[in-house]
Amino acid sequence: MAEPDSLKAPRRGRSSRPPRQRMDTDARREQLLDLGLGMFAARTYDAVSIDDVAVAAGISKGLLYHYFPTKRDFYVAVVCEAARRLLEVTSPPLELLPLERLVHGLQGYLTFVDAHALTYAALLRGGIGTDEDVIRVVEGAREKIIERLLEGIGQESPTALLRLLLRGWIGFVEATSLHWIEHRDLARDELLQLWVQQLVRTLPRETAKS
Amino acid sequence: MAEPDSLKAPRRGRSSRPPRQRMDTDARREQLLDLGLGMFAARTYDAVSIDDVAVAAGISKGLLYHYFPTKRDFYVAVVCEAARRLLEVTSPPLELLPLERLVHGLQGYLTFVDAHALTYAALLRGGIGTDEDVIRVVEGAREKIIERLLEGIGQESPTALLRLLLRGWIGFVEATSLHWIEHRDLARDELLQLWVQQLVRTLPRETAKS
Repeated sequence: MAEPDSLKAPRRGRSSRPPRQRMDTDARREQLLDLGLGMFAARTYDAVSIDDVAVAAGISKGLLYHYFPTKRDFYVAVVCEAARRLLEVTSPPLELLPLERLVHGLQGYLTFVDAHALTYAALLRGGIGTDEDVIRVVEGAREKIIERLLEGIGQESPTALLRLLLRGWIGFVEATSLHWIEHRDLARDELLQLWVQQLVRTLPRETAKS
Repeated sequence: MAEPDSLKAPRRGRSSRPPRQRMDTDARREQLLDLGLGMFAARTYDAVSIDDVAVAAGISKGLLYHYFPTKRDFYVAVVCEAARRLLEVTSPPLELLPLERLVHGLQGYLTFVDAHALTYAALLRGGIGTDEDVIRVVEGAREKIIERLLEGIGQESPTALLRLLLRGWIGFVEATSLHWIEHRDLARDELLQLWVQQLVRTLPRETAKS
């Protein structure tokens, strides 16, 4: 789908703006989300203005609003995109054995944390107030990871305790990731090994055996 | 200190407002922070208006701005207050033995989580964007808890790994707290025991012995 021809927002001529480019809808959406990932990771929500996003993307404010009706809509879409990418890079090939799948997933996770430290921290730390949609996206991603873990250890009807422990272990991984981004005082492989070791220690004995 | 007599903001007479009360500065500040804790826990940052806070407190907007110049200042002060209260209720009496201190601190933590579930969740989950001041307050509280733990296990010059592990354990406690608030599928004592057990499992062997 191409972008709409007529834009209701007035176009003011400003020679300093980069020239406007016509793009396919999906490509444009992806470009805007990429921009958002960079901008919201580096600045506060209040400091990101829709004007700045439009200028950086080389499009009119009207066209930007066509994709995302409000700044909050844009922000929630950016958080969704970060969570989607994180789940994608941690998705292990099905032909691997359970432990290999775990290590593969954690390697993908650590690569994401390492390469997108600011985005990762922004995704997890949140900023100001409470936002139901943001919480739903982030908790949804954790839920998905718990499902993968349960599948990996062959527990299709997990106890409430097992779910709680896995959620706690994810909290451990997230907290050590945030600490590691800031201090980097451990080798990547050591951190990875720590996560695996901690999972084994966290699981109840009867689960760990299976 | 008493409140200022002259207020620059115009007072519009509205019969539905509760009557204004004169209060001592500290008492007023505490009243406003109490209100903020309730309001920000229940609504998004955008949905809380300075007008609503002033009406709920029975004071003028001008007087509210005298205490907190912007809504964000108010929000950050509320987060500080939540962190201060959490640290206060988890502070153990010095005459206790290390393990007793740990259990006492965790009992205080769980009581806070239980009684102020919404505030606790809002404190940890954040909402939208990134905010350096909010991160500093929340990370500062965690840092304080790590210092208490290190003191408790008699480690005054901890290794980088030990600090990372304790930060991870706090992540475990926070994640399981958030999960527990929502599901409540474990007795309080079971959750408490889980936290202690998990700390023992997390600490390196040579630390756990001491």
